[in-house]
Amino acid sequence: MTRDLTIAEVRLTPILVADAPLLNTQGVHQPYTPRLIVEIVTADGITGVGETYGDTKYLEPARALAERLTGRSVMDVNGLFGIDLAVDASRVEGRTDAGGLRGVQSAGKLRLSVLSAFEVACLDAQGRALGLPVHALLGGKVRDAVEYSAYLFYKWAAHPAGVPAEPDEWGAALDPAGVVEQARRLRQRHGFGSFKLKGGVFPPDEEIAAVRALAEAFPGHPLRLDPNGAWSVATSLKVAKELGDVLEYLEDPTLGTPAMAEVSAATDVPLATNMCVTTFGEIKEAFTRDAVQVVLSDHHYWGGLRNTQRLAAVCAAFGVGVSMHSNTHLGISLAAMTQVAATVPGLHHACDSHYPWQPEDVLTERAVFVDGRVAVSDAPGLGVELDRDELARLHRRWAEDDGWLRDRDDAAAMRTAEPHWRTPVMPRW
Amino acid sequence: MTRDLTIAEVRLTPILVADAPLLNTQGVHQPYTPRLIVEIVTADGITGVGETYGDTKYLEPARALAERLTGRSVMDVNGLFGIDLAVDASRVEGRTDAGGLRGVQSAGKLRLSVLSAFEVACLDAQGRALGLPVHALLGGKVRDAVEYSAYLFYKWAAHPAGVPAEPDEWGAALDPAGVVEQARRLRQRHGFGSFKLKGGVFPPDEEIAAVRALAEAFPGHPLRLDPNGAWSVATSLKVAKELGDVLEYLEDPTLGTPAMAEVSAATDVPLATNMCVTTFGEIKEAFTRDAVQVVLSDHHYWGGLRNTQRLAAVCAAFGVGVSMHSNTHLGISLAAMTQVAATVPGLHHACDSHYPWQPEDVLTERAVFVDGRVAVSDAPGLGVELDRDELARLHRRWAEDDGWLRDRDDAAAMRTAEPHWRTPVMPRW
Ligand SMILES: [Mg+2]
Ligand SMILES: [Mg+2]
Repeated sequence: MTRDLTIAEVRLTPILVADAPLLNTQGVHQPYTPRLIVEIVTADGITGVGETYGDTKYLEPARALAERLTGRSVMDVNGLFGIDLAVDASRVEGRTDAGGLRGVQSAGKLRLSVLSAFEVACLDAQGRALGLPVHALLGGKVRDAVEYSAYLFYKWAAHPAGVPAEPDEWGAALDPAGVVEQARRLRQRHGFGSFKLKGGVFPPDEEIAAVRALAEAFPGHPLRLDPNGAWSVATSLKVAKELGDVLEYLEDPTLGTPAMAEVSAATDVPLATNMCVTTFGEIKEAFTRDAVQVVLSDHHYWGGLRNTQRLAAVCAAFGVGVSMHSNTHLGISLAAMTQVAATVPGLHHACDSHYPWQPEDVLTERAVFVDGRVAVSDAPGLGVELDRDELARLHRRWAEDDGWLRDRDDAAAMRTAEPHWRTPVMPRW
Repeated sequence: MTRDLTIAEVRLTPILVADAPLLNTQGVHQPYTPRLIVEIVTADGITGVGETYGDTKYLEPARALAERLTGRSVMDVNGLFGIDLAVDASRVEGRTDAGGLRGVQSAGKLRLSVLSAFEVACLDAQGRALGLPVHALLGGKVRDAVEYSAYLFYKWAAHPAGVPAEPDEWGAALDPAGVVEQARRLRQRHGFGSFKLKGGVFPPDEEIAAVRALAEAFPGHPLRLDPNGAWSVATSLKVAKELGDVLEYLEDPTLGTPAMAEVSAATDVPLATNMCVTTFGEIKEAFTRDAVQVVLSDHHYWGGLRNTQRLAAVCAAFGVGVSMHSNTHLGISLAAMTQVAATVPGLHHACDSHYPWQPEDVLTERAVFVDGRVAVSDAPGLGVELDRDELARLHRRWAEDDGWLRDRDDAAAMRTAEPHWRTPVMPRW
């Protein structure tokens, strides 16, 4: 073999991608969201790509990491996690993240979110160099397509007046009828068979009504509601009682493992989380207390695809279900999610993905959902190709931004419409 | 790429390998032990090798599995575990295994022990085809050498008179002086820095005296004692108390998770196991009850190298240590153990290996321990080459056996010396 798998170059491209005015309990999505595209180039000129959060606090350690990778083998992904990657803990410890939707921040979580893009880029490069799909490098796919759910959002028709933004074809969804209409269109376009509503936006009774309307419009289809911890234990139990007959699971009704355990003990509705179990260190308490029945993995949080497989193994051993969380992401991450999901035997729930909400991408071909499923690519690596013109365009948008969009802040975005908006104190209801 | 990774042929070679008269609580090792060598050949003529138990009850499902593999890709190791592999449950359920030393048997455990050799052979073939060491296929090594402990046994000088057997250079070890002398020779020859005594053979006081003698002879070196569940909870606690100052851990002092949990709750000496946690299904109870502090993985039990990584991930998430168990094995399995151990970050204990007790092997070159460590091979695959003449010779021994050695039975072997020997009722002390 004359192949040279040594890393010769690492390219980091921060971009801003258009995002719709989607509402959550913290505020509203900015008109543009920062993402970071990582390219790892081998001595043979083979390029692997990865994608992660693009906020400044991720960019800084990503740059430090990029400088330390040349000369290493792209095969050595376990070794990435041993690199002493300085993260300024004071920037993160104890705060909530940009979106406020993934639990308390920590230097360790930030570090893994950065590493995840490099791990994925290494796996993509490995696959391209070896002529193998990423799933084969992960032990092989156990399914040919991965199911995703329709991700429903309360949303405005447009970003606040006066704020630069891309046009939005979806219109408003602020009541049960709007949510059902959105679900119908997403299902029509992509064939989704299950529905998740991002809640925590309106008082629980309104969100209960929206889920009831979905249950009537799509009888027998799995439904989920995720208020991102906006409810008290009592409210969580009230919602669980009222929607127990139609919910596949209730996602993060309340904040923290102790409160989730309290809810869990008093209801038969399964609880899912991407907030109280987001690191390996949080698993023990949550599992021993039976606080959650489904963990929503996210390869960005957990540090890549192999760690996602490790998480799935821990869940399997404890009889805890596994599915996938999503935040705003592009096609590289969708491909990565699909490749790893294809290798996890006990994936019994459709995965979440924001992808249908992203009008822009950095790939030459957009991913396609058929019957709510993404086909598992057998092409080398992730099976995606960068559109360099589009990457350059979205990077220019980032470079030309005066700074306020480079760090996602859903509460700040909300204040452009509602100047007196404050991040709600939880539990909100 | 013109490479063809399709499985074209699977060869199974049962063999009998010489074994020393090592004593354990069930009886004594037979003079020859059955092993099965699995070869998986790709369409390109690349051969990968694996090794597992060779008893008839493993051979039968191995043959059924071998027939179903041609046409599949050697990359598809996850898919192996989805094959509906019929195992005659009536042959195993509820019985103890041949050596009586790995807990209660089940069809599931038997199935995984068979699959493990095929998974390893696939990984070896992958590595050879791709020009990569197995550790690179598992994410990359995080260390360049793997530490093993000296595995000490009470033993006779020779197998019972009249029984065909290979000569044994080690002499008897039936008291503290004999154990220390054996330890000294093993350390001199291989450089081992920690010592494990297989106990459960003599009354606890004699074994306590042997460990005390080791502690005096090798001050500061980690020591372990493993009676294979031969003791009651009270006896276990007595031994823990008497040896607490010198033990790295106490291994399976008593049988079953409830009894182990009782011991664990009453002592600070860490408990290790390869008997009460031998499958993913046994983890939850043991970990939630804090019954064990170290799990001794064994890629044969757990179904291969990727499952060993999964087990290590579960242990890491629960703060449970991980090390490696060993039963009689040859160099293929030692290479497999070393490759996977090289990829596990939290391997804080030296692994066990019977290898120094095996005078015979099916490889062109024996593995070498330097300072108790085996260097992690960076050669393609496992980095081993079959010695086909030796493989043929050991297979002839198996073929010519009239049947009694083909299924390991340490109690039956004991009866050739002590005709009235019965498998002890546990707890024995
Ligand atoms: Mg969520
Ligand atoms: Mg043991």
